[in-house]
Amino acid sequence: MHPDDFRRAGHELVDWIADYLRDIERYPVVPDVEPGDVRRRLPSTPPVTSEPIDRLFADFRELIVPGMTHWGHPGFFAYFPATTSPPSILAEMLTAGLGAQCMSWQTSPAATELEQVTMDWLRQMIGLPAGFTGVIQDTASTATLVALLTARERATRYAANVAGLAASGPRLAVYTSRERHSSVDKAVKIAGYGLEQLRLVDTDEAFALRPDALRRALEQDVRDGIVPACIVATVGTTGSTGVDPLPAIADLAGAHGAWLHVDAAYAGSAAILPEKRAHFAGMERADSVLFNPHKWMLVNFDCTAYFVRDVDALLRTFSANPEYLRTAHDAEVANYRDWGIQLGRRFRALKLWWVVRSYGVEGLQAVIRAHCEWAAECAGWLAADERFEVVAPVPFALVCFRLRRRAGEDDAAADARTRTLLERANATGHVFFTHTVLGGRYTIRMSIGARATERRHVLAAWELLREVAG
Amino acid sequence: MHPDDFRRAGHELVDWIADYLRDIERYPVVPDVEPGDVRRRLPSTPPVTSEPIDRLFADFRELIVPGMTHWGHPGFFAYFPATTSPPSILAEMLTAGLGAQCMSWQTSPAATELEQVTMDWLRQMIGLPAGFTGVIQDTASTATLVALLTARERATRYAANVAGLAASGPRLAVYTSRERHSSVDKAVKIAGYGLEQLRLVDTDEAFALRPDALRRALEQDVRDGIVPACIVATVGTTGSTGVDPLPAIADLAGAHGAWLHVDAAYAGSAAILPEKRAHFAGMERADSVLFNPHKWMLVNFDCTAYFVRDVDALLRTFSANPEYLRTAHDAEVANYRDWGIQLGRRFRALKLWWVVRSYGVEGLQAVIRAHCEWAAECAGWLAADERFEVVAPVPFALVCFRLRRRAGEDDAAADARTRTLLERANATGHVFFTHTVLGGRYTIRMSIGARATERRHVLAAWELLREVAG
Repeated sequence: MHPDDFRRAGHELVDWIADYLRDIERYPVVPDVEPGDVRRRLPSTPPVTSEPIDRLFADFRELIVPGMTHWGHPGFFAYFPATTSPPSILAEMLTAGLGAQCMSWQTSPAATELEQVTMDWLRQMIGLPAGFTGVIQDTASTATLVALLTARERATRYAANVAGLAASGPRLAVYTSRERHSSVDKAVKIAGYGLEQLRLVDTDEAFALRPDALRRALEQDVRDGIVPACIVATVGTTGSTGVDPLPAIADLAGAHGAWLHVDAAYAGSAAILPEKRAHFAGMERADSVLFNPHKWMLVNFDCTAYFVRDVDALLRTFSANPEYLRTAHDAEVANYRDWGIQLGRRFRALKLWWVVRSYGVEGLQAVIRAHCEWAAECAGWLAADERFEVVAPVPFALVCFRLRRRAGEDDAAADARTRTLLERANATGHVFFTHTVLGGRYTIRMSIGARATERRHVLAAWELLREVAG
Repeated sequence: MHPDDFRRAGHELVDWIADYLRDIERYPVVPDVEPGDVRRRLPSTPPVTSEPIDRLFADFRELIVPGMTHWGHPGFFAYFPATTSPPSILAEMLTAGLGAQCMSWQTSPAATELEQVTMDWLRQMIGLPAGFTGVIQDTASTATLVALLTARERATRYAANVAGLAASGPRLAVYTSRERHSSVDKAVKIAGYGLEQLRLVDTDEAFALRPDALRRALEQDVRDGIVPACIVATVGTTGSTGVDPLPAIADLAGAHGAWLHVDAAYAGSAAILPEKRAHFAGMERADSVLFNPHKWMLVNFDCTAYFVRDVDALLRTFSANPEYLRTAHDAEVANYRDWGIQLGRRFRALKLWWVVRSYGVEGLQAVIRAHCEWAAECAGWLAADERFEVVAPVPFALVCFRLRRRAGEDDAAADARTRTLLERANATGHVFFTHTVLGGRYTIRMSIGARATERRHVLAAWELLREVAG
């Protein structure tokens, strides 16, 4: 591609992205495609010769965009949000243009130091004390795996890495609530603990871990000669944004010498609001904390903020120093390849820097605060309508609800109606809800957090629900 | 940020990127900064209120760019390349604009199906048979970990995930050469095998694994009741691009029932050249193969191609299916969240699609072929100069060399002169070489692979070396 073609195409793409952000409401949130529809229209063998950029761009618009789910759509209430924002998209453009590998200080000094600075900004913004050091991981899955591995090494006095788990001493166990995210199970498998060593602790009526049940599980294991290696507490569970009681959990972690990892993947962004800080009380006693600025803080995926108190334990778990990576500066700099799983790293601090500066802390607070207020409002509307019931507290911006049982109707029949309600609402193309199961019952999750969502979209979604509920 | 501000800033950034790509030769490859220089110029607390995008862009140009190592510089001969290209950068812009989460089919149908199509293109391009299925992983580190975990599960009949390694049966061992990449060691630690169960097999004079030594290691373990779980063979080692003998290794893997993983992170891109295909003979007998289009095939980091023969083994190792992720289509589609470590995934197939189409297979072949030819040429120049010696074969585009010992000089003194040569060459700002140690001797690695590098840059680098060598 000639440099001038890049320039011309780049300008066209910027205009397309600007139009897309402006017009995103006109797309159906979820595309009307069946499995195989897109694939069928693509050639099964690669082209031998060069194709012009205009044809690629046309194919993108005609074959790809109509087959995408639009995560930035104002009617996107599914899962948890994965936000973008204009300054974040712009920064990603520069990251792509530089094409730097950020594995060690020497390979990208400014990227490493900008990550140190911006991660410390985030630490201050969510109210963690200065004893925590931050590093960007790609995803919460990876960050939780990093925590479970560091915990494994600390519990075996760094023997598991060397001798292997089969030979490194007593059995280890991990503790979390029944409402934990699936990434905890996955990390328990990957790190070699084994799912049978994952204790799923009961939750209370607000879907929060019960400390008394945790205490019993810990004590039983100690009696059985099993070492409590790690407790994973959640602030903002995926099902219902339940908040585990961190102070009581921290007491138990301290008493048993277990690593305390706090998974605040979604809710952590709300810790920048003073009025939400109470949900995070006790977080400062954790050994590690993660949250995803790419979920709710307007930073493009991927950007998981991982904070750890004992950096030496982290480095001892992950550092490798082959000859071909050694540099003259190793003793005085952060080489982030030693802070996690991957060697190669994108320049992700840039988008974080631009988002925080472009919005300012107050601007970010205003966005997240509004989402929380609309969720509370929407929960009020649902609760006031006799056809619906809100089935979990709404500490942040997720509302969990279902249709009430009618007289003489059993749970299964009511659940079937709730499922139909979700399907009909989604079929309009104006909204996208997903579901979960809470207390054995089918539940719709309405997660408010797309950057384009305004109060009028929440109101329209509510009106749509009322209409479809019949 | 107002939408119009995004549009205006986007156009400015496109022009900056176009200028950067055009003028990259004017920058010093490695910046003249000391640890702390960049950090010192950045505020230690986050801004409370919004800052204009023009200020962010100015700070990027003035504080960040002068502190970056320029991986796209034509004089970048360090490590292995991390390539970008105009179509790849453009595709990354669109990926950022869409902001889609590609964890399952429903969350981005077109992204999933485009990944299926483009990964099958890559499979054909590198000559793997149809029995292999591809998936994009973020990095080779992760892909090797995925292979070692799948091997672990297969060797324990999927018991390790459930019972943990401490209880899942006999000890397992992993085999690789002394020249393997550090990510193998890291994955062995993470997956719980333990470094003591990693057998580092001796290499021959071309830095390739010796099958007789591998056979002895396997047989010794079998005698000791240890199960050979996985062999990691390398095509294109990091130190010197050594090529392990795959056919003999595949025989041994077959005889012992071990998973054979081929790490072709760097060299795999050269498998698209018919004349280089012989180096990959036997790859088709592997259980898994990885290579990095982001290293040498003009695709932006991150994009690791991972091919696996037994998809069921992969899925059985990684799949998780919590209620909140279930969809109506799960039985008939690929949900890539179950194909690796992370749940969240960027839309990475788009850049792969654009690069292959923009260049065409012939265009990509021409780029990689030229790099290999220039490396062979440069090795010839070095070999013909009595001051230098080339210390490893040059099957791809990496030349390993050092200064010859002078009469009466010992190895250490000659190595010190080679180190000084590297430092002086790098200090000019026109080139960036890194080093390794081969056969105990300090060795300069000249890796030709940046997209902007032309023959004249290789020639200039050689002239610089001759001049600095004195």
